[in-house]
Amino acid sequence: MADNKVLIVGTMAFDEVETPTGSSGKIIAGSATYIALATSFFDVESAIVSIVGRDFPQDYFIELSKRNINLEGVEVDNSGDTFYWKGRYHKNLNRRDTLVTDLNTLANFNPIVPDNFKDAEVALLGNLHPRIQLSVLDQINTEKTTIIVDTMNYWIEGTWDELVQVVAKTDIITINDEEALQMTNATNVMSAAKKISKMGPSHVIIKKGEHGALLYHKEQTFLAPAAVLDNVIDPTGAGDSFAGGLAGFLASQPKLDFETMKTAMVYGSSVASFCVTDFGTKSIVNTTFSQIKERVKHLKTLVHFEAP
Amino acid sequence: MADNKVLIVGTMAFDEVETPTGSSGKIIAGSATYIALATSFFDVESAIVSIVGRDFPQDYFIELSKRNINLEGVEVDNSGDTFYWKGRYHKNLNRRDTLVTDLNTLANFNPIVPDNFKDAEVALLGNLHPRIQLSVLDQINTEKTTIIVDTMNYWIEGTWDELVQVVAKTDIITINDEEALQMTNATNVMSAAKKISKMGPSHVIIKKGEHGALLYHKEQTFLAPAAVLDNVIDPTGAGDSFAGGLAGFLASQPKLDFETMKTAMVYGSSVASFCVTDFGTKSIVNTTFSQIKERVKHLKTLVHFEAP
Repeated sequence: MADNKVLIVGTMAFDEVETPTGSSGKIIAGSATYIALATSFFDVESAIVSIVGRDFPQDYFIELSKRNINLEGVEVDNSGDTFYWKGRYHKNLNRRDTLVTDLNTLANFNPIVPDNFKDAEVALLGNLHPRIQLSVLDQINTEKTTIIVDTMNYWIEGTWDELVQVVAKTDIITINDEEALQMTNATNVMSAAKKISKMGPSHVIIKKGEHGALLYHKEQTFLAPAAVLDNVIDPTGAGDSFAGGLAGFLASQPKLDFETMKTAMVYGSSVASFCVTDFGTKSIVNTTFSQIKERVKHLKTLVHFEAP
Repeated sequence: MADNKVLIVGTMAFDEVETPTGSSGKIIAGSATYIALATSFFDVESAIVSIVGRDFPQDYFIELSKRNINLEGVEVDNSGDTFYWKGRYHKNLNRRDTLVTDLNTLANFNPIVPDNFKDAEVALLGNLHPRIQLSVLDQINTEKTTIIVDTMNYWIEGTWDELVQVVAKTDIITINDEEALQMTNATNVMSAAKKISKMGPSHVIIKKGEHGALLYHKEQTFLAPAAVLDNVIDPTGAGDSFAGGLAGFLASQPKLDFETMKTAMVYGSSVASFCVTDFGTKSIVNTTFSQIKERVKHLKTLVHFEAP
């Protein structure tokens, strides 16, 4: 992984989040935003491919640029507003209801990958319509690039055939536990991981929220812990910042083997554990790499034990 | 812990379990049964204090005796039948409905602790009416004995004042995650563990089913993994065999420090992972200690990682 490039395709959005303890107001969010911020802790050059509307603040582009995030692939579509999502979390923060989804200019999204990111070390395709993910895969050097794909129930239910095509070309898939069961008709995550692996990805990562994440790779299994927190404010972006931390760590390493993947997942978990302690990207932008590393050490202490 | 004794107080029962894949028929079960079998893997002498009715098979006492399980404290009450429980698990095996609970002779249970177990190294009070747990605590040397208590929502809702008295005298409490939240009005397990610890127990263990178990002790935290299984048949007894494995390992060790507790939890998790692969006690009685140790090693591989 020579020049440590990460290509990120996802949404840039406005979110409005209600939780049992408060309300975020209208804030900047979106999968590509969280992912890019998470990758920026590592020694990598990231590029976002996304679309925003006329209402997206220019100041925020400057903030992202300062973090070595390339924005050539972000289209500003002045014909409409930026993608907007409003949701409300239950007392159990694992559950949420979507109140509003306004696609706005996201409906016009036609991703164009910048030339110098077509052979990035890692491409992370955030949760989007599989047709858009396929269009990106058609533009990049899939032989050279490690493809990470995130997906969700909406695409499992609505666009199965296209999703199958995406998954077939994927090296590392990240998916929630419930959605993995839904996707495979399995009754446990282990069976689900095995079935998904047969669809293409050599690495299957099942995200279990506060219970961490499972990696399945060629009959080997690893459980990455999640930090045990008593100060979770807003879980939005946890999965994206996990995937971004994973992608950033991987792209910064000389090789991708099972040990590297394990450590990458724990780095992802560390980044996610900061993300959730405030609304939107507020916490993640105020976190330092030394804090991320400290939390990785803490996670090691949390799960390591001596056995005779 | 000189002579490695474990005192076990709990139910001996008939269960009938329905799962999405099958039905157990009427089988021998109960918290004390699972706990005692789990302790019998270790170099300890265990004693059960329980009650059964006229219908409990004498053969089973012989089976337990062969495993060095002392049955002096088991009362055979010929005035009625043995405690009977029937339940049905959902497709999601974390959820179950109770169909029948016949207390039968359990309603007459008046625990009498055998003299030579009044200063056991470890006393494990299974999930029972707190009044019964208190009666046991009154009979034993609580200064010398490490007291482990298991409880559940039924007692939190119905017998709060007595439960508080039990918890105040407890060294190690084991409780499910949802019930820990219910008991403390907390919104996350970390806060719940801290609150429960203030009620008495120096060690709080929050059981998270397939997601493992959390230990909280004086600001230190440990996450014991659960094995990732694709062959779970019947989760009944998982919590009891976890607690039994924990108690058995602790009683077999020269001292109880944080490292010992961590390893003990992983041994508990290992025993539980065998318990759930068949109905009732079928799997646990056919498991060897070398399999238990192998699984502990596997659990280490499952969660250990390298961090720079």
